[in-house]
Amino acid sequence: MAESSPVRFGILGCANIARKVSRAIALAPNATISAVGSRSIEKATAYAKENGYPSTTKIYGSYEAVLDDPEVDAVYVPLPTSLHVKWAVLAAQKKKHVLLEKPVALNVKELDVILEECESNGVQYMDATMWMHHPRTAKMKEFLSDSQRFGQLKSVHSTFAYLGDTEFLENNIRVKSDLDALGALGDAGWYSIRAILWTSDYELPKTVTALRDPEFNEAGVILSCGASLSWKDGRVATFYCSFLANMAMDIVASGSKGNLRVHDFVVPFQENVAPFYTVEGSWVGELATSIHPAPSEHQVNTDLPQEALMVKEFSNLVGSIKGEGSKPEKKWPTISRKTQLVVDAVKASIEKGFEPVEIIY
Amino acid sequence: MAESSPVRFGILGCANIARKVSRAIALAPNATISAVGSRSIEKATAYAKENGYPSTTKIYGSYEAVLDDPEVDAVYVPLPTSLHVKWAVLAAQKKKHVLLEKPVALNVKELDVILEECESNGVQYMDATMWMHHPRTAKMKEFLSDSQRFGQLKSVHSTFAYLGDTEFLENNIRVKSDLDALGALGDAGWYSIRAILWTSDYELPKTVTALRDPEFNEAGVILSCGASLSWKDGRVATFYCSFLANMAMDIVASGSKGNLRVHDFVVPFQENVAPFYTVEGSWVGELATSIHPAPSEHQVNTDLPQEALMVKEFSNLVGSIKGEGSKPEKKWPTISRKTQLVVDAVKASIEKGFEPVEIIY
Repeated sequence: MAESSPVRFGILGCANIARKVSRAIALAPNATISAVGSRSIEKATAYAKENGYPSTTKIYGSYEAVLDDPEVDAVYVPLPTSLHVKWAVLAAQKKKHVLLEKPVALNVKELDVILEECESNGVQYMDATMWMHHPRTAKMKEFLSDSQRFGQLKSVHSTFAYLGDTEFLENNIRVKSDLDALGALGDAGWYSIRAILWTSDYELPKTVTALRDPEFNEAGVILSCGASLSWKDGRVATFYCSFLANMAMDIVASGSKGNLRVHDFVVPFQENVAPFYTVEGSWVGELATSIHPAPSEHQVNTDLPQEALMVKEFSNLVGSIKGEGSKPEKKWPTISRKTQLVVDAVKASIEKGFEPVEIIY
Repeated sequence: MAESSPVRFGILGCANIARKVSRAIALAPNATISAVGSRSIEKATAYAKENGYPSTTKIYGSYEAVLDDPEVDAVYVPLPTSLHVKWAVLAAQKKKHVLLEKPVALNVKELDVILEECESNGVQYMDATMWMHHPRTAKMKEFLSDSQRFGQLKSVHSTFAYLGDTEFLENNIRVKSDLDALGALGDAGWYSIRAILWTSDYELPKTVTALRDPEFNEAGVILSCGASLSWKDGRVATFYCSFLANMAMDIVASGSKGNLRVHDFVVPFQENVAPFYTVEGSWVGELATSIHPAPSEHQVNTDLPQEALMVKEFSNLVGSIKGEGSKPEKKWPTISRKTQLVVDAVKASIEKGFEPVEIIY
C-alpha cells in the first residue's frame, strides 16, 4: 500500500458532519479529496474553500457529476438517511466504493438493496461509525475477550444522548420525518446498539423489547427511547438514546470476572488520548467495609483522530481492491446490517406497544 | 441528644453482616450493644467475644430473651428474610425500635404487617440500607436536585452484582427458597431499586417490566435479573442485579443538563473517602472532534463509615422518641415500602412472562 496512490474521495453534499470527515480525509495518509458535489455549485464552491480542500478538487453542481467522475474512487455519503438508498446504490453501480454516514438506511430492506449493489459491483462498503476505529476500541476489546480478566459477558448498558437546542429540535434533519425518520434511535441509538453488539462479538440478541414511553415530536419522530436485548443465555443489554438529555456516551459492561466502563465512547473528550476503566476479581474487604481493587484507568493515545483512522482503514481496503484485486472486506457490511436489524427491531417493538420482537437474521 | 444516654441495641442472631453493624454500633457515638441472642447460647457467647462486644453485653440463648430485656431499646434484625415478619413484629410489640436488614420482607403484604406494628407501637423503623447515610449520598443528591446543573432526570441505570462462589451458590441463605426467596433481586436488586427511586425523589414508576431471561437456581431462586421502570413522562430507568457477575455498584444518571455517575455506591472502595463524577452543559468542540468539559471527580470524606452513620441516624431518631416524645420519622418506612413495591413488581413481571406490571401505591 505504501507505494500506491491515495484513494480519491468524492463528497456528496455539504453536510456539517462532512467537514469532520473532510479533515479526516486530509489527515489520512492514503486518501485525498478529489471532488465535491452539491445541488448548488455555489454552495459546493464555498464549502470547498471554507474547508481548505486541495486546489485540484473538482467542484460539481450535482451528486451525479461526482459519481460520473472517473477520478473518483470512493464516495462519502453524508446525505439525509432517506436519500441513502438512491445515492449509495448509484455510487455502487458507478463502481465507487461507499463510506456511508449512519444511520445507513431507514430499514434493513433498504440497506439490503445498498449492500447487494455494493457486493455485485465489487465495491467496499463501510458505515461511518468512527469510534470503531479508535485504538482504544481494540484495547477495550482485548479486555472484553480475555476469559481470565473479563470472563463471560453478563450485562451491558449503553447511553448515547445529547441535548438538542430549540433550533435543533425544530429544524435539524435528524428530527424530520421525511429526512431522518429514525430520529434519536437512528442518530444516537445506532451507536449504543453497535456498542452492545460489539461487546457481544456481534452475536445478535434473540429478542429486542423497547422500553415504554419513548418521546416523540409532533411529526412522530423519536426524540428519546431505549430497549432491552436478550440472548436467552442470561446475558442482557439495555440502552437509552436521546436528543433531550445532556451529552452522555457510556458503555458499562459486567462480565463474570471483571467490568469495563467508558464514558466518551462515541467521541473522546480529547482527540489524541482516550480513557477507559477496568476492574477484575473484585471482592469485599474485612467486614465488607471496602471493595478491592479500585478500578484502573487506561489511557490510549492515538496519532490520528478516530475519523482519520476510519478513512485510513477504508482506504486501505479500497487500495487492496484497486491495487491487488482483493475482495471487499465483509466485516463492515455484516456488522452494519446487524446494527440495522436491531434498530428495526426497536422501532417495531415501539410500534407493537413494547412487545418483544424476535430478530431473524 | 448529646446529654442523653446511648441507644441500647440488641442483636438478633449471629449473621455475618451483623459483625459489620456491631462494629458500627460501637463506632456510633450514641449507640451501644446491650445484648445478643442466638438459638445457641454457645454461639452467641463466642460471637460476642469474637466481635469485641462490651463485657456488659447480655448473652441470650433465644431471640425472645433479647426482646424481653428492658435494657434493650432497639433491635437489629439480620435474620433470613423469611423470619423478618415474625421477629420484627414481636420486637415492635415489645416496644423495641427496629433496624431491619434488607431485603426487609418477602413481599409488601408482609412488610405492611411489620410497618403497621411499628407504627401502632410508636417505634422507629429503618431498613439497613447503609449507603443512604454516607455523606456522599447527600452531596450527590444536591447535584441531582440542582435544576441548573442536572436539570430534569431523563434516564438512570444501576447495576449491583457480585460473584457468588460455589460455596455461596450452594449454601448461602441468599439462594435458599425457604430463607431468602427473593434471591439476587432482594439482596442486590434492592439497592439498585432504591438508587433509582432515590434519583426520582421516591416517585414510584407507573410500570415495571422485568427484563427477559433472568437466571434461576434449581430451587427457582433468582440468581440474576433486571427490569425497566417507566414514569409516563419520558423518564426511564433500568437495572441489573446478579450473583453471577463480578462486583459492580453503578449508578449512571442522565439529566437534561448534566450527568452523575458513581461506581461504588453500595460499599465505597475506601471507607473514609468516596468518589462520584459529574458533568454538566456538555457540548462538542469544533468539528465535533472532542467533548467539553471532561467529567469532574468529587471526593467526599467521612469521619465515620456509612454503617456507623446509619446507626447514628437511627439512634438519633430513637433518642428523640425516648427523650423528647417525638413521633417516629416516617421517611424511612415510606421509602422502604416503596422499594419493596418495586421489588414485588419485578417479581410479578417475571412470573407473568415479562409483562409490564402497574404499581399501585
